Amino acid sequence: MASPTATLLLSCPDQKGLVAKIANFVYSNGGNIIHADQHTDFLAGLFLVRIEWQLDGFNLPRDVIEPAFNAIAQPLNAKWQIHFSDTVPRIAVWVSRQDHCLFDLIWRQRAKEFNAEIPLIISNHENLSAIATQFDIAFRHIPITKETKPQQEAKQLKLLQQYNIDLVVLAKYMQVLSAEFVSQFPNIINIHHSFLPAFAGANPYQRAYERGVKIIGATAHYVTADLDEGPIIEQDVVQVSHRDDVNDLIRKGKDLERVVLARAVRSHLQNRVLVYGNRTVVIG
Amino acid sequence: MASPTATLLLSCPDQKGLVAKIANFVYSNGGNIIHADQHTDFLAGLFLVRIEWQLDGFNLPRDVIEPAFNAIAQPLNAKWQIHFSDTVPRIAVWVSRQDHCLFDLIWRQRAKEFNAEIPLIISNHENLSAIATQFDIAFRHIPITKETKPQQEAKQLKLLQQYNIDLVVLAKYMQVLSAEFVSQFPNIINIHHSFLPAFAGANPYQRAYERGVKIIGATAHYVTADLDEGPIIEQDVVQVSHRDDVNDLIRKGKDLERVVLARAVRSHLQNRVLVYGNRTVVIG
Amino acid sequence: MASPTATLLLSCPDQKGLVAKIANFVYSNGGNIIHADQHTDFLAGLFLVRIEWQLDGFNLPRDVIEPAFNAIAQPLNAKWQIHFSDTVPRIAVWVSRQDHCLFDLIWRQRAKEFNAEIPLIISNHENLSAIATQFDIAFRHIPITKETKPQQEAKQLKLLQQYNIDLVVLAKYMQVLSAEFVSQFPNIINIHHSFLPAFAGANPYQRAYERGVKIIGATAHYVTADLDEGPIIEQDVVQVSHRDDVNDLIRKGKDLERVVLARAVRSHLQNRVLVYGNRTVVIG
Amino acid sequence: MASPTATLLLSCPDQKGLVAKIANFVYSNGGNIIHADQHTDFLAGLFLVRIEWQLDGFNLPRDVIEPAFNAIAQPLNAKWQIHFSDTVPRIAVWVSRQDHCLFDLIWRQRAKEFNAEIPLIISNHENLSAIATQFDIAFRHIPITKETKPQQEAKQLKLLQQYNIDLVVLAKYMQVLSAEFVSQFPNIINIHHSFLPAFAGANPYQRAYERGVKIIGATAHYVTADLDEGPIIEQDVVQVSHRDDVNDLIRKGKDLERVVLARAVRSHLQNRVLVYGNRTVVIG
Repeated sequence: MASPTATLLLSCPDQKGLVAKIANFVYSNGGNIIHADQHTDFLAGLFLVRIEWQLDGFNLPRDVIEPAFNAIAQPLNAKWQIHFSDTVPRIAVWVSRQDHCLFDLIWRQRAKEFNAEIPLIISNHENLSAIATQFDIAFRHIPITKETKPQQEAKQLKLLQQYNIDLVVLAKYMQVLSAEFVSQFPNIINIHHSFLPAFAGANPYQRAYERGVKIIGATAHYVTADLDEGPIIEQDVVQVSHRDDVNDLIRKGKDLERVVLARAVRSHLQNRVLVYGNRTVVIG
Repeated sequence: MASPTATLLLSCPDQKGLVAKIANFVYSNGGNIIHADQHTDFLAGLFLVRIEWQLDGFNLPRDVIEPAFNAIAQPLNAKWQIHFSDTVPRIAVWVSRQDHCLFDLIWRQRAKEFNAEIPLIISNHENLSAIATQFDIAFRHIPITKETKPQQEAKQLKLLQQYNIDLVVLAKYMQVLSAEFVSQFPNIINIHHSFLPAFAGANPYQRAYERGVKIIGATAHYVTADLDEGPIIEQDVVQVSHRDDVNDLIRKGKDLERVVLARAVRSHLQNRVLVYGNRTVVIG
Repeated sequence: MASPTATLLLSCPDQKGLVAKIANFVYSNGGNIIHADQHTDFLAGLFLVRIEWQLDGFNLPRDVIEPAFNAIAQPLNAKWQIHFSDTVPRIAVWVSRQDHCLFDLIWRQRAKEFNAEIPLIISNHENLSAIATQFDIAFRHIPITKETKPQQEAKQLKLLQQYNIDLVVLAKYMQVLSAEFVSQFPNIINIHHSFLPAFAGANPYQRAYERGVKIIGATAHYVTADLDEGPIIEQDVVQVSHRDDVNDLIRKGKDLERVVLARAVRSHLQNRVLVYGNRTVVIG
Repeated sequence: MASPTATLLLSCPDQKGLVAKIANFVYSNGGNIIHADQHTDFLAGLFLVRIEWQLDGFNLPRDVIEPAFNAIAQPLNAKWQIHFSDTVPRIAVWVSRQDHCLFDLIWRQRAKEFNAEIPLIISNHENLSAIATQFDIAFRHIPITKETKPQQEAKQLKLLQQYNIDLVVLAKYMQVLSAEFVSQFPNIINIHHSFLPAFAGANPYQRAYERGVKIIGATAHYVTADLDEGPIIEQDVVQVSHRDDVNDLIRKGKDLERVVLARAVRSHLQNRVLVYGNRTVVIG
């Protein structure tokens, strides 16, 4: 749609009238709802909703929308956020030596599959700097050792602020982030090269080969303090056979990794992911 | 859920306030919405919604719900229906010689995957009557020839009325229904053994083999006057290779057919399918 | 094919001339090879081959084939077996309370998808005995407790001998077999309701739900002394979403379980599975 | 493997002793077979085989291998070819306006997924020339109109000779090649954006949307005089829903197209594809 939209993501304890209250807020202010998706987790007693409406003809000026909605949200004990489709998020892509996910993300951003900018690439190695140059993206080489990690993470945080980064995408960044870093910058998506929780940790393809599995997978998830334990956004798999050695698994896995990561990033950028506890609701 | 629910399926020309109006109807009468799914087809300018709410604590008596809602629906030019989860639909399964889909449907009904009864099996052959006996289901043998078709279809219609059938499932029924029959009993789901529109018509597996495809599929769709042209509810595929001859395609296809048909029937029984023109909205 | 065939499964240390030697054995005795599949595991330095040839026109009488081939196999240090397509394997299906895999296996055997007989069902519960009666299969109820396990497993072994069972299929048999039992009857295929190694052990669906995975799977494997660690024959997966609660996972899983188990049993019955170490070569 | 290999692709009327004869040829000359895959099409009475052996220790000099094998092949009425793994095929990628397949093919070639060179890009539009420059590949702009087609195809043929091209990959080249061109340069792989035979011809995504399918696909096939009728090498699909408009189908399709095309090109480059009639045998 040409018209800019507002998207509300909200979760709160389940109770009667939630859909009505929220829909009324939009309608009574002249908004036209174009998407409304609700989910109720009955075990958790939690109501989750995503509502997107057109801003053309919406009577509230933007700076008033949040305070106005807050009056409704507060009594509901709701966690919520509102995004506007014409504010373009800024992504920092973090990589190590492998280029397939980086290439893919850049291509998709250029192809307008992502409504986002990619102003910054951070790597603990130098070998991908040429790609950054090629596509005119800032590249920062920040090597990490056990000793230097704290100050290097401080550098990284500073860069994220400096470049006004909204989302960090770990595109085969082979370093673990400290719990402290994650607590200070929580918006991080990682691609793990296995169908978690299988083969969590290092060398999943090697271990998949040794186990003799007939399927390998990839998992995109938000990064939390617990390595490979974050909320899963997207997973997919591909069949393998006895004909595939470890290198074949790695090659086949690359195709999975870039597609799974791209789908997760796209869902996040379209504000279609709600997180609660260790779970996600991904609006299809 | 223990509590019975009401499910509204509605489609109407898109306009502002639709979600609010419908949600208010439920809320103002004390209903608790447990599922609300909306889709807008911007090309068609059509709004489609499925709303399910708990009847416990809902103030309107059942016989008043429809007239009460009609007052809201009429000005919207809406097509709509309301279903109650505790009225159990009755299915007639139509078969010819193959038993795999029939067995599967009966097993799922017995396993409570379907909230439905299967009181009647109709076949143009006699060989599956033993299964009907085994599971204590009425079996009617109605052979069809070009000449006898009209009066036989009349017989079939009579049976559907007699058994209060809500849904006919063509579980590998290898006969074409007349346009007239379909107009008189529109609630019919068919399983076609190809990923339509490929290999529409007869012998899809033979033709798939001859074409040398690497994937075969199955399609569950509502039956319309145009053979194999009805709204598609569900499709799935499986990979095949040069090692598979026609019999292998048929065998692999059977696993697809029963799963695809079962998913479609289940979606229909849960009132998760909205049809408009030749398209379906299937609430995931 | 109408003509009966012989199938050789062989594995030995890799060396030159293996294909030639084996093919010559068949050819020089007038056999017509209809399938020849070879795999070399270069890491293990192992050569594995499956060769199937027609027995019509083959000059060696059956009782001479094995000794004759032994003269070739011995110098190669080969592990090997020869199967004849017209000797029909006998399967014992072991179940607990769930019937979906049992029903499916019986249906496939009746539908001639399996070249096998199913003369025996063993269960630690009684509730499925009616199915056995329905299909005229012997049913033995052998309850298991920690205390009675040894003598009950002795009973089970005795039954397998008594019924000349070639293959045991654990079709949702929710008991662990002792290492001793497995060592005495190694031909056992189990279906595990997760994409192993994820969620090995108990309640995989519950744990899959808690982890918030977007894909669930099923795994068919040979049973070894290490629970859930046996060689994997077949795996498949299905997508799930936040809309699916544990019961949905269980329901979707059942469709996976029966298909994955059936594929594995069929591959085994067609002598298309070679095992070495903890790995399988499954000839597609 | 470090050691270069020879790969024989052969098809001939089925008869006894074929495997033995071919294996003996390799063995008697000191070759070590590392892959041997056979398929018999019983309907066609055709035997097809792929045999790969190491050239280290093989006694025949390369220029003698073909004449030597010809002595065996001729009496068998065999069609055959022998490829050496260290002769690197040269690919010309043909494109129109879309870049996703081109980017992908180049990335895979650079990533060594393809054992091939890409010295030439031909396009009927100019907009992708920058990519050619970026990766230092010759780019030739050859616009096509109905009138100019014959002389332009002559130009294209000349370029293929000039650059010693072994394989043409139509990576979303939106022009039809004349039967004459195909007869003069038969080694052409095309990616079609539908699961053929569904939606053969133009605008498959638009037509898929209009039909309301729940699955879309892509097909890689060899190009023949009959448009979209050539032997299928590879197909894959992805699920779509009512939420996906035509642009979503196009976007999802791009991910399919590049993966399906890449798999087909890789199989071809590894000499794992045998063609007969309108069918392919793709060695897994």
